[in-house]
Amino acid sequence: MDFTKKIFRRVGADAMLTESSDLRFYLTGFASSFGYVYTDAQESILFTDPRYAESAKACMKGQYIGVEVAGSADAVFDFIRSRKIKKLAVPFERLTVPKMLRLKKCGFKLVDSMPAFTDAMECKTAEELALIERACSVAEQAYVRLLGQLKEGMTENEAAALLEYEMRLCGAEDRSFETIAAFGANTSVPHHASGDTRLRKGMPVLFDFGCKVGGYCSDITRTFLFGKGDNEEFAKVYAAVSEAHEAALEGILPGMTGREADELARSRLRRYGLDKFFTHSLGHGIGVNIHESPTLGPSGTHVLREGMVFSDEPGVYFEGKFGIRIEDTVHLTAGGAVSFMKTDKKLTVL
Amino acid sequence: MDFTKKIFRRVGADAMLTESSDLRFYLTGFASSFGYVYTDAQESILFTDPRYAESAKACMKGQYIGVEVAGSADAVFDFIRSRKIKKLAVPFERLTVPKMLRLKKCGFKLVDSMPAFTDAMECKTAEELALIERACSVAEQAYVRLLGQLKEGMTENEAAALLEYEMRLCGAEDRSFETIAAFGANTSVPHHASGDTRLRKGMPVLFDFGCKVGGYCSDITRTFLFGKGDNEEFAKVYAAVSEAHEAALEGILPGMTGREADELARSRLRRYGLDKFFTHSLGHGIGVNIHESPTLGPSGTHVLREGMVFSDEPGVYFEGKFGIRIEDTVHLTAGGAVSFMKTDKKLTVL
Repeated sequence: MDFTKKIFRRVGADAMLTESSDLRFYLTGFASSFGYVYTDAQESILFTDPRYAESAKACMKGQYIGVEVAGSADAVFDFIRSRKIKKLAVPFERLTVPKMLRLKKCGFKLVDSMPAFTDAMECKTAEELALIERACSVAEQAYVRLLGQLKEGMTENEAAALLEYEMRLCGAEDRSFETIAAFGANTSVPHHASGDTRLRKGMPVLFDFGCKVGGYCSDITRTFLFGKGDNEEFAKVYAAVSEAHEAALEGILPGMTGREADELARSRLRRYGLDKFFTHSLGHGIGVNIHESPTLGPSGTHVLREGMVFSDEPGVYFEGKFGIRIEDTVHLTAGGAVSFMKTDKKLTVL
Repeated sequence: MDFTKKIFRRVGADAMLTESSDLRFYLTGFASSFGYVYTDAQESILFTDPRYAESAKACMKGQYIGVEVAGSADAVFDFIRSRKIKKLAVPFERLTVPKMLRLKKCGFKLVDSMPAFTDAMECKTAEELALIERACSVAEQAYVRLLGQLKEGMTENEAAALLEYEMRLCGAEDRSFETIAAFGANTSVPHHASGDTRLRKGMPVLFDFGCKVGGYCSDITRTFLFGKGDNEEFAKVYAAVSEAHEAALEGILPGMTGREADELARSRLRRYGLDKFFTHSLGHGIGVNIHESPTLGPSGTHVLREGMVFSDEPGVYFEGKFGIRIEDTVHLTAGGAVSFMKTDKKLTVL
């Protein structure tokens, strides 16, 4: 996936310099903690440090991008100066103030490459879609294996660790974010940090998780009941959240704004008086990063386009009682949104 | 651990605003993906969004820092304006260009809080040291459990996943970085990404890993042989790396620079003609972040102080053949460096 030329053409600068690890991975397919990608009209070079030299060369073999070893940022900046570059494109959103000051001191006129990155990264190629689909499939396989091993008395932390372990065994290179395992009233905390709470019969259980395959992310949430309890209220709310989730999945079309997409789910919850408990956005873009553009939420003015991948995740939370969130990673086609997920979303009592 | 007042006093501004997640955690002990800590001479407030409101309030209970819910950065900036703040301290190293422009547009005169953070975070309190010690102990317990489960045919990815799983079961809330498992010639890649290589008899094996306890990190590397092979060269190099590791551990004292500390190990490898294969620095500070100040390397001008925690990790790498790294997390006391690690560092043939 050589996106460097495409993005370079859009930025309209003499050269482009990309440091942040996600954008560097997007351009090169190579992950590392230090590095710069330099691009001009003639060539693209990945500058890496000695620790990564061997693996960077192996990864870039046969690609358009060359590899050079540089011990420091200054060595890279000196290289750019030697090329007599005046207008240099850098992603402002990822550029820190001291780095900006150093680049300005080098005499470069800085322009922002971030809009070109965001625009390119929003719409996925067939190759990217295949990786995300695989990341979704691996996450779901692992989830099914986890369900078979859940036991009364297990802590959230143990369950989260087991799910991450299963994702790796199923073929993930890593998780895409810290797994959320929430038991009982903890399900009412949308971003609960898995802790020492133990699983008991009758508890609501929420898992929000995902993994990475080929550097691309999946994101999924399932909420269910661990054995029967007094479930009437839970079942009623579950039905409403499920309806909101499906309304978005069925209604989202290219050309809509993120706000309009969010409203498809939010208006459904409003019918049941539950919209005020839906305290976050409907969804976010997913790709190399677990959170990227577009935003599907009340403030989302961005227009949704074919090829985008995002989450559909309405949720309703009753502080101190329980919360329910149902989330799929979905792909926007000309005909509408298509979920990558295969696992059941019906109310489940395990 | 209330560091807010201490850092605020050092920055010499009307107020201080801290957004980046590591610094926010350092100030509050509360982890989240969105948030700002506002501090002035009278008070400290953690601004969080609705998703985190419930857990933030629970975490801040009884602390000096109050909690307010804010849906966006703008809401926080408006609050600061309402306080008639002129000189605002923000950590420049964590401040991106668009955020800086927004703050300037609000009329604030920005000063850098990062030096005060770096200085405070370098030297650990007794409470911080206890958490790091526990993170080291958990990582080692898990490592011993892993060794008992290593089997011929296992992939690096499976072994890395198993080690991370064991760390969680032993009491870690998370890993402190992506675990490196390298088998055979992959050990010669200092930052190898665990992959599909399978474990075979006679292979060198390298694990570089760590975990988090109470938000604080551990970092450890062990290299050994999986069964006997033609080990003569490996054993010779292992002895040299081990000598370099011990030379640093025994020789580092408060008052030395990072360069002098690095040289303790590097000069030992030079005796054996191995210094040119030691392609990285001796060590890095460890705390809330897995990599923080100080740097113990050829460019390290910073003076080492009592209470600092850093890695002692000399390594020697023969491209395409094998690599050896021996790493402990160590604590600098008035009398010298003390390792937190208890596991054996003698040449091991498993």
